[in-house]
Parts: sequence; C-alpha cells; structure tokens
Amino acid sequence: MDVLGVLNLGEIAQYFSKMAMFPVFDVAYYIVSILYLKYEPGSVEVSRRSPVASWICAMLYCFGSYILADIMLGECPLDYFHNNSHILLATAVWYLVFYCPLNLFYKCVAFLPVKLVLVGMKEVVRTRKIAAGVHHAHHAYHHGWFIMVITGYVKGSGVALMSNFEQLLRGVWRPESNEILNMSFPTKASLYGALLFTLQETHWLPISKSLLICLFTLFMVTSKVTMTARHSHSSPFALVESWVCHVLFGSALASEDSHDHHHCAPAASAAPASPAKTRDELNEGTRKRKAKKAE
Amino acid sequence: MDVLGVLNLGEIAQYFSKMAMFPVFDVAYYIVSILYLKYEPGSVEVSRRSPVASWICAMLYCFGSYILADIMLGECPLDYFHNNSHILLATAVWYLVFYCPLNLFYKCVAFLPVKLVLVGMKEVVRTRKIAAGVHHAHHAYHHGWFIMVITGYVKGSGVALMSNFEQLLRGVWRPESNEILNMSFPTKASLYGALLFTLQETHWLPISKSLLICLFTLFMVTSKVTMTARHSHSSPFALVESWVCHVLFGSALASEDSHDHHHCAPAASAAPASPAKTRDELNEGTRKRKAKKAE
Amino acid sequence: MDVLGVLNLGEIAQYFSKMAMFPVFDVAYYIVSILYLKYEPGSVEVSRRSPVASWICAMLYCFGSYILADIMLGECPLDYFHNNSHILLATAVWYLVFYCPLNLFYKCVAFLPVKLVLVGMKEVVRTRKIAAGVHHAHHAYHHGWFIMVITGYVKGSGVALMSNFEQLLRGVWRPESNEILNMSFPTKASLYGALLFTLQETHWLPISKSLLICLFTLFMVTSKVTMTARHSHSSPFALVESWVCHVLFGSALASEDSHDHHHCAPAASAAPASPAKTRDELNEGTRKRKAKKAE
Repeated sequence: MDVLGVLNLGEIAQYFSKMAMFPVFDVAYYIVSILYLKYEPGSVEVSRRSPVASWICAMLYCFGSYILADIMLGECPLDYFHNNSHILLATAVWYLVFYCPLNLFYKCVAFLPVKLVLVGMKEVVRTRKIAAGVHHAHHAYHHGWFIMVITGYVKGSGVALMSNFEQLLRGVWRPESNEILNMSFPTKASLYGALLFTLQETHWLPISKSLLICLFTLFMVTSKVTMTARHSHSSPFALVESWVCHVLFGSALASEDSHDHHHCAPAASAAPASPAKTRDELNEGTRKRKAKKAE
Repeated sequence: MDVLGVLNLGEIAQYFSKMAMFPVFDVAYYIVSILYLKYEPGSVEVSRRSPVASWICAMLYCFGSYILADIMLGECPLDYFHNNSHILLATAVWYLVFYCPLNLFYKCVAFLPVKLVLVGMKEVVRTRKIAAGVHHAHHAYHHGWFIMVITGYVKGSGVALMSNFEQLLRGVWRPESNEILNMSFPTKASLYGALLFTLQETHWLPISKSLLICLFTLFMVTSKVTMTARHSHSSPFALVESWVCHVLFGSALASEDSHDHHHCAPAASAAPASPAKTRDELNEGTRKRKAKKAE
Repeated sequence: MDVLGVLNLGEIAQYFSKMAMFPVFDVAYYIVSILYLKYEPGSVEVSRRSPVASWICAMLYCFGSYILADIMLGECPLDYFHNNSHILLATAVWYLVFYCPLNLFYKCVAFLPVKLVLVGMKEVVRTRKIAAGVHHAHHAYHHGWFIMVITGYVKGSGVALMSNFEQLLRGVWRPESNEILNMSFPTKASLYGALLFTLQETHWLPISKSLLICLFTLFMVTSKVTMTARHSHSSPFALVESWVCHVLFGSALASEDSHDHHHCAPAASAAPASPAKTRDELNEGTRKRKAKKAE
C-alpha cells in the first residue's frame, strides 16, 4: 500500500468516525432494536394489554446500553432520557412498529433488503457506542483497564445483558439462561471490541482510533449482514475460540457438526438446547412466523 | 365563582400545600403501608422466622419511593435513612403492627373507620411525594420531561414498582405478574399525577402548584377512601382508558361485566386471573381473613 | 490486668489494626472465597462452558462487598476495579483454583490445615472491611446510624447478600431462600459487628477502634476456624438469639435437638430444610465430595 493510499484511508476513517449518528443511524438502530422486541414471544400481547410495559421494554431495547453504562459508572440511570428528541423518535418508532394500521410499517422494515441495510446501520452505531464507552470510562478512570473493558462491553451489548430483567417486565422468567452464560454474536463481538478499543486507548495498540472504528465497523457490518441474510447464527469466532478455550480452560473441542457455537462450546451442556439460541441469533424465519402469528 | 372565592381557594390551597407532613401524616402513611405488608400472604411467618427480613420489607414499604427515586436519579439509595427519627418511627409502627401483645394495635388500625382516615392521610402524603419528585427531577434536568414524569411516578408508586424484589426478600417469587403489567389504581393515578405535575412544572398547565396539589389530593383521597370503604378495586379511569387504549393501541374494549379493569383491559389475558389483583387492590375482606388466620 | 498489660494490649491492637492487608491477607481472602464458589453445585461446569460467567462470579465472590457498598452509597459499582493489581491477583487465583493442571492448587488449598489458616486470614480481612464500611458511611453521613450499620453489614457479608443474583448468573434460581431470610454465621456476625463498630464510631461504646478490631477479629477467627475444623454450622449466637427473639418477636424457642439454628429458629418453617443450609454453612465434607465428583 503506498503512502497516498494510507493517507486517503486515514482521511476516510477520520471522516467516517466523525459522522453524526443522529438522526438517520439512530433511527435505524431504534427500528432494528424494536423489531427484535416484536419478535420476542408474547411481546405483541403485552403491547395490547399494557402499553406502558411495552413502551418501557422498547426504551430498554433502544437505550439499555446507556442505562447500564450509567449504572456501572454510578451515574443517573435516567440521564439519557433528557434527550427528549431521541426518546420521542424511539417512541414514534415503537408506535409504528407495534400499532401501525395494517401492520404496514412492520412489513416494510422487516422486508429483507430493507432490513439488511438497517441491520448494517445498527452495527455502525454499536461500534461507536463501544468506542464512546471505553473513552468515557478512560476519562473517569485513567488506568482502570477493567473498567474500560466492562463499560465498552456494556455499551455494545445493551439490553442483551439485562434480558432476564427485561423479560421479567413482560411477565416472562427464564432463569436457566442468560446472555453471559450463552453469548450471542453481538455480545461476544462487543467484548472483543471493548478489548481492542481499551488497548487502543491505553496506547498498546499502535493504530489511530478513527481507523480502528472504521475497521471494526467494517467487520461488524459484514458479519451481521451476512448472518442476517443467511438466517445463520454461527459465529465467525467459533473455531479460534474453541481452540483457545480448549487450551486455556480445558473446554471440550466443538465438533464440526455441532450447531450451537457457544462461547467455549459445551460438550455436555447442562442447559437445554433451546435457550442457547439467544435474542439476536434466533433464526429470523422462525421469529417472523411467530410474530406474524401473534398479530 | 367570584373573585373572592378564588382568592380564598388559593389561600387554602397555599396553606394546605405548605402543611408539614411529619409526624402525623407520615405515621399514617407508615401504618397503612405496614398494614398492607401484613396482609401479604406469608409475611407474618417471615416476621416470626426472620425479623431482619421483615424489618427490611417494612422499610421498603415505607420508604421504597425514596429509595427508587434515588436509584433513578443516581443518588445514594440509603440517603433517606439519615432521617433517624423517620426510621425509628417506622420501626416502632412495624413493631406494633407485627408484635403488639394480643394484636391490639393491628386490630385498632384495621378497624374500618380508623383505617379510612389513615388511608385518606396516606393519599395526602402520596400526592406530596409526586409533586416533590417532579420538582426534584426538574431541578436536576430542566428540560427532562421524561425524567420528571418517571421520577414523579416512582415517588408516587413506591414499593409497588419493586414488588417482585420485595417478595423475593420474603422468599416469594411471582414472575408472571408485576405492577407495570397489571397496574393497580394508586400506581396508575401516580402516573397520571406525575404527568399533570410535569405539565404544571413546565408551565403547560396554567394552574398554580398549590392548587394542583390540593385538587389532586382531593381526587386521590375521595377515590381511595371510597374504594377502601366499598372493598372495591374498580378504577375510576376504567371507561376512559378502555376507549383511549382501544383507539390508540388497538386493545379490545372492556366488556361491562369484566371484573378486572387492567390498564387497557385484556380480552384474552395470558396471565391467570389471580395475580391480576395486585397489592393495593386486593379485596380487603379476603386479606384480613388471611391475615387473621396467619396470626 | 495491670496498667502495663493494658498498655501493651493497646499497642498490639494499634499495630494489628494498622497492618497492611495487601497482598498476603487479600490473597487468602480470594482463595477461600473462590474455593466456596467451586463448592457451589454446577460452578465447575459453568467454568468449562462459559469462562466469562465464571470469572464474573469469582469477581463477585472476591469484591461483592465493595460493589454492594458502592451501590448502597450511590457510588460507582465498578470503582474497586481500578485497583488493577487486586483484580489481576484475584483472576490468577480464580484461574489456579478452576483450571490448574491435575487440580493441584485446589487440592493444596482445600487441605484442611492449610484451609484453616486461610479461613482465619479471611476473617481478619472481613473485620477490617466492616470497620472500613462503618467509617466510610460515618464520613458521608455523620449522624446516619442506620446507614453506618447497613454499610458495615454489607461490607462484611459481601456476595452472600446478593447470592440470588450471583446464582442467576450461573443459570441457577432458588427464590425460596436468601441470605437475609436464613442468615449464615458470617452474615449474622457481620450484622452484630456492624452494630458494634457503629456504636464505637458514635462514641456510645467507650473503647478504642483498634482494640475493637482486635477483639472482634479474635472472636471471628476463633469461631470460624472452629466451625470449619468441626464441619459444624451451629452458630455461637443460637442460644442468646433464641431467647431474645422469643421475648421480642414471639418466635418459638429453638429445641435443643434442632439442627438448623436460623436467626430466630422457626417452629414451622415454610421453606424446605435443604436451602436453609447456606453457602458458608454447608457441611464442608459434602461440598468437597460434590466438587470432586464435578471434576
């Protein structure tokens, strides 16, 4: 790669990492998040029975990462809610997804090509959030590496990390599984992303932040769009993880035909097979069918 | 209404909204709250087995609104506990309600005429709390309308919003229902009250705060006393809500003979009927019988 | 006791209460805590399946008291994690306990004589934590007696108070019991210790802090080491408690042959017998056998 190419790449990355997320990308984030909420079994009934509970769940899906990060850093959990425009926008999206006449809005955004674009845009926002979370924690704790990783992780994973309590709000309780025990791809990627951004922030990774944002976004968008398009939930980390976990933690090696690639795939998983398929990973087709039936 | 009448009303409202709540009204609040704790199935056994757990539950019933509001605003959840006199008073009430010889204190305060007065006084305190919560949030977030509503709501509803976790402390776990999914009258009224006080605080409602406090208190006292006297748990909002929810959220219209008027009454409620009757709404007669049996 | 003896005792107490806990005593604390985690049924499988969940649980066992106290006082729950050396040390202990080849490390530290020394050292740290918690709360709330007691209690009990949620992280849910409903010896002792240190801090107990630390440490070490050596879980408070609870709270008197000495031992406990044996109190032999089988 010649000098000019590097310069250009740097400039593009610079431009890309400064690009405003509000409102276009944020709206995409809200749409995809609330779409996943609608896929959850029982959420349509809750939206009919108790709009307040449904609205709170929608807000958790959209702003869970801010709420959790604020809790982790001992700040006001409601802090993000002073951005009235963001909340109103998310509320509008929630209303359209759940109550639009003829279910028109839902049908439009759940249409695969549209959805792929939105899913890609969501990952752009996710990467930014991870970087912002690490930066925020670095500001508060200059040498708190663990705090940086945890904050970045929480900012990237959002509602997934509190899914047990979000489900409880809808009257569902599944204690046998949670997002940390059975990490989905976005949660896992957030963890690795938070590690990378922490290394960058503490100058262990000799790369500019804007370039890292650019590269990580590229990776996330590609992976997530591919996975959504192929209705797949196999993680690109599975092979490496399987080996590392085998060497470091004595986990059994994942057999090739195994279908559920957990973090350190289990040989004799105690949990039943179904809860292993978590929120973001659930086969899209099945979910859509369920959601349609629920209408 | 002539000018003089309005002036007088304003003065009365002014006086009323400045009236000190401690100790008389606060004691009434503690008594009614801990009475409701005693009505909870199993709470008498817990008070025998583990006085510490029972005391913590009693404190949650009395000060849950302060604890929750402090959590929501990122402040010290124990902050209110530096008011030693309030805590000692509530502890005394707890001791008398649960351990008084011959159950004398309980019998006195559960005597209907006495209870009606106490219930009325509790509602006076509740309204004040909502107003204070909205004001507090307004102070911290000048344009955070959502934060104001949520803080006021939480201050008005108190322990009800964390009933799942309060029950867990007593070894009871009922995940299929919660106060947001099946709102009781006081919770719902707190939400509407918080909305009104937020509108007033942001000058959208052209009415003085003291007058609003006065009117809302009047409404709450009347409703709650009537409901307690008639052992009823039908909400005065039911009809309006039913129509609004039908139009806005496509909920089924509540049939006239329906007995459980949820927020947006369900046509085919997934939850079984019994948990729908929440804390404050449970038929008083049944509860008293249960509590007596538990003695 | 002559003047010289008292002077000497005061000096020894002074020296003892100033002694640094890091790293020797802290390591002992981490080892014993993570040992107890390994005794928990299912924790070995979790460590194989999801090292991240296992690591988080280990951190909760080691630093739960700091996290809880920070939450209670409205500070950053992750605050303690900026002590990178402490976290790295605890992580090393966690790795050695769970993944050491041939299970060598576990076998060494679970060897009774070694374990008794470590258990004794853990109690030294616990007492210090209680004193520090009360002092911290006293600094923030000068007259907040209740806040002091609660903070000291939480600092002494640590993860036990959030055991329900720690278990949930491992996919286990046992709502019918919790540490407040069925207090184990260390939790109970932490409560009494927090009371004593609060009395000392507010000058109601005419004794120097260093002497109180010294005496309380002596009591804790003796009790806990004896209980661990004898595989016993009977509390030294049982007799006094039984009488006090009988007089104050009307609890049934514990019969002499009763095996489970709860706080205010129940006559007709609603909870089944097994969950009554809590974390620290479980018969060590049984737990070791279970842990071995799980290997």
